[in-house]
Amino acid sequence: MSNKTAVGKAAATKRGTGRTAEAKLADLRVRLAEISDLNGAGALLTWDQATYMPPGGSAVRARQGATLSRLAHEKFTDPEIGRLLDSLTVYADGLPKDSDDAALIRVARRDYDKAAKVPAAFVARMTEVGSASYDAWTRARPANDFATMRPYLEQMLDLSRQYAGYLGPYRHIADPLIDGPDEGMTVASVRALFSELRAALVPMVRAIAAQPVADDSCLRRAFPEDRQLALGLQAIRRFGYDFARGRLDKTHHPFCTKFGPGDVRITTRVKENDFGEALFSTLHETGHALYEQGVDPRYGGTPLDSGASSGVHESQSRLWENVVGRSRAFWEYFYPIARKAFPEQLGKVPLEAFYRAINKVERSLIRTDADEVTYNLHVMLRFDIELDLLEGRLEVKHLPEVWRARFATDFDLTPPDDRDGCLQDVHWYAGTVGGAFQGYTIGNILSAQFYAAALKAHPEIADEIAAGAFGTLHGWLNKRLYRYGRKYSPADVVKRATGKPMTLQPYLTYLRGKYGELYKLPV
Amino acid sequence: MSNKTAVGKAAATKRGTGRTAEAKLADLRVRLAEISDLNGAGALLTWDQATYMPPGGSAVRARQGATLSRLAHEKFTDPEIGRLLDSLTVYADGLPKDSDDAALIRVARRDYDKAAKVPAAFVARMTEVGSASYDAWTRARPANDFATMRPYLEQMLDLSRQYAGYLGPYRHIADPLIDGPDEGMTVASVRALFSELRAALVPMVRAIAAQPVADDSCLRRAFPEDRQLALGLQAIRRFGYDFARGRLDKTHHPFCTKFGPGDVRITTRVKENDFGEALFSTLHETGHALYEQGVDPRYGGTPLDSGASSGVHESQSRLWENVVGRSRAFWEYFYPIARKAFPEQLGKVPLEAFYRAINKVERSLIRTDADEVTYNLHVMLRFDIELDLLEGRLEVKHLPEVWRARFATDFDLTPPDDRDGCLQDVHWYAGTVGGAFQGYTIGNILSAQFYAAALKAHPEIADEIAAGAFGTLHGWLNKRLYRYGRKYSPADVVKRATGKPMTLQPYLTYLRGKYGELYKLPV
Repeated sequence: MSNKTAVGKAAATKRGTGRTAEAKLADLRVRLAEISDLNGAGALLTWDQATYMPPGGSAVRARQGATLSRLAHEKFTDPEIGRLLDSLTVYADGLPKDSDDAALIRVARRDYDKAAKVPAAFVARMTEVGSASYDAWTRARPANDFATMRPYLEQMLDLSRQYAGYLGPYRHIADPLIDGPDEGMTVASVRALFSELRAALVPMVRAIAAQPVADDSCLRRAFPEDRQLALGLQAIRRFGYDFARGRLDKTHHPFCTKFGPGDVRITTRVKENDFGEALFSTLHETGHALYEQGVDPRYGGTPLDSGASSGVHESQSRLWENVVGRSRAFWEYFYPIARKAFPEQLGKVPLEAFYRAINKVERSLIRTDADEVTYNLHVMLRFDIELDLLEGRLEVKHLPEVWRARFATDFDLTPPDDRDGCLQDVHWYAGTVGGAFQGYTIGNILSAQFYAAALKAHPEIADEIAAGAFGTLHGWLNKRLYRYGRKYSPADVVKRATGKPMTLQPYLTYLRGKYGELYKLPV
Repeated sequence: MSNKTAVGKAAATKRGTGRTAEAKLADLRVRLAEISDLNGAGALLTWDQATYMPPGGSAVRARQGATLSRLAHEKFTDPEIGRLLDSLTVYADGLPKDSDDAALIRVARRDYDKAAKVPAAFVARMTEVGSASYDAWTRARPANDFATMRPYLEQMLDLSRQYAGYLGPYRHIADPLIDGPDEGMTVASVRALFSELRAALVPMVRAIAAQPVADDSCLRRAFPEDRQLALGLQAIRRFGYDFARGRLDKTHHPFCTKFGPGDVRITTRVKENDFGEALFSTLHETGHALYEQGVDPRYGGTPLDSGASSGVHESQSRLWENVVGRSRAFWEYFYPIARKAFPEQLGKVPLEAFYRAINKVERSLIRTDADEVTYNLHVMLRFDIELDLLEGRLEVKHLPEVWRARFATDFDLTPPDDRDGCLQDVHWYAGTVGGAFQGYTIGNILSAQFYAAALKAHPEIADEIAAGAFGTLHGWLNKRLYRYGRKYSPADVVKRATGKPMTLQPYLTYLRGKYGELYKLPV
């Protein structure tokens, strides 16, 4: 073969349709990395805003964030990405079933198809209205001012419907909103799951409510802020959170964020008169962070570099916060340490009293403060109401009264105001109405399923936790779940890790076992 | 006029050449704001890297920064920006002389013409080599390893020459490299200025060197870190640094950065055994920050939202660090506060002894540690050497010996190694060879010129400083300099503020007055 021909062939390969699938995949990866960079920088803008940004920075920060999201959306919906994905789909079908490349093409295809359906102008409008609405909500909630939020919520509801419309066709209008964060779930499947769970929870909550309320006054003493933070750091270092690839800072609303495989940060908030606030929110965000830190670093710069779904992600925050962090085993190890940090506050409180305090069950107003047993009733209430709003069976103007009525039915309590009623969660006011809440309960359910599977594989885990060793549990989760990122669908990853599709049984067993010991429960 | 015609006209105006100048200017502003957002986000990436980023974040961070710079360069060199500027130049000529819009068009034109001359691939290469070279330098300097840096420096020199070539034509190859940061200056004008200054400095340094060295041992005691930081905060709050639009954090190499008009941050570093390190670097960066915080907020999102030049910027850091921060008047006010913070360390040190210690003049190895008098000799040495490198009269391989020889001539000292010799500054290894050093001495010269002008307008400033009041000085600087940002050229803004072009006289008067009182100087 002459030199000239070789050069000619190389040039042809470079130019267009003659490119190999490998070259196209490489091109796709470069494009995805650029988008990942924009998103990573955007995530840093948000982290900084929530931690260190001086107040004067907010106006420009909002614009910077909007610019980066818009550019990322523009780059991602570039028709050339569609063409690359089109021609790579056949290639992916020929790859081994377990291939990372095939998974990348599948996940990028899924994201692209969704993003490309939504016009850029709509995305910008949604961001803009959401941002203004969020801003109004930060003032309206403390002022108990639903009237101000009503037109915003009407807009957000309208936009959520339009958004679902773009993503359609659908069986139920909330289906596309749920399928975004929780791939594979639908209104029908969530309803079935929730109704089964509800049937078990309602008598459990009723039985507990009939008994004396646990005394948690030992958690309401004055716990100096710096020692609270230090205690949280001690716990999560033992859990296996890697500080060379992360850090903990203070914020108003705790969250976990990822800038890349080597930088997964968490935030927490501290209340001096509340032992649990900082610690449990730190453990919660650490669960998210362990998941993100565990994703195969080779997935960096691609859409695989993240958790499988909202529900699977939440399962890890709840596993480390509740299944581990509120277990008797954990506190056998950690209570002496906590007492050493707070000798005056906890020195005379026996472990058993402390354990009962941190696991107190009580019907209360606020979802984020709720205990493990009642928490899911908060979620179900929101899920049912958002479906009614989306279906048009409930008008926004009637939301406060409907909330109060439903709350009274489910909790035997009437919220004294909207601040601690229908204004309490930011989700509807800043994001979509629909799709944001089911993940919390799916997470609770899966937390027990993953833990039970880990325990079955390594029965020594319970004893290890009581000895302050978390490596076996963390290692199992890394190997069976974390490292895969978004490689497998949520349903697949659950099945691969636990051997079964999502099932309620381990969660009910967990709740009945733990709370049956703490309270008398109906059999 | 029929409706149809009006619609037709509006449509034509929207489309193309029919657009009004105002519409084109609005279009330009939108584009510039997008670029400003990318640059602002890039600056946050850098700030975070230098303050809070965990070590694991560095690989992805470098890529994110490169992506944002590349996108900003692509957006800015979009030929449509060139076309907008072309058609707006005539419009600008018709605007009032003092118009902000005309200034915006002029400055954007200047930046665009420079940026458009440089191919994107070259920018990427320069960033890539600079980044690798910087990385190597961070290890080679402590290891005193010039051999490793030699090929990098040869590359950087070569790239600097190419860069100058793109920006040409020029009279001297360093002219375009100087004109970038210090608009209007050339090798010839800097040489003239430096030679005049040198003629005054050399005998001054010689006379001081012949006298006993001042005792600064009182600054070398153990000063606890948190109290050092708190003292710096006290000082800069009085200066007028606005913490609602900024913050101070710790870093390795202090800097000031701006994310937008409402967010101008500074960083400092602390050495326990060095009273001056944290304090004076805080005051220095605060000078930069006061300038940036003072720029008219309406310039936000445009290239006007920054200081006029490297030299003018440096004049403000030096004014607040030295002219104010090392003055006797300032310490009359601040020494009792410093003593209260460090009673054991400074309680027995009289003000006069302390004042002499912080103004100790000594020929020493390191530019960044140098006193006010010898500092400029460090700059001149670098300036002359970089010209020799660019002109090809000096080969990189001979740099260490040439540095040592020149150092011996100028300082009567021979650096014991390259670490504290030709490896000490990062500039050549990470940026361009040429253009980075002259700004420091221009800044020193202008610091005295601005201060003298302020004092002439408000003779009470000296007494106010001694009483801890900085509002008159800060207000005058805001009104005469800061608020204009890049609206006027460096030469214009100096003339407008001080009534004169840049002149050496106030600086020489300042040095002779201050150091003539501290030391015996030749008349």
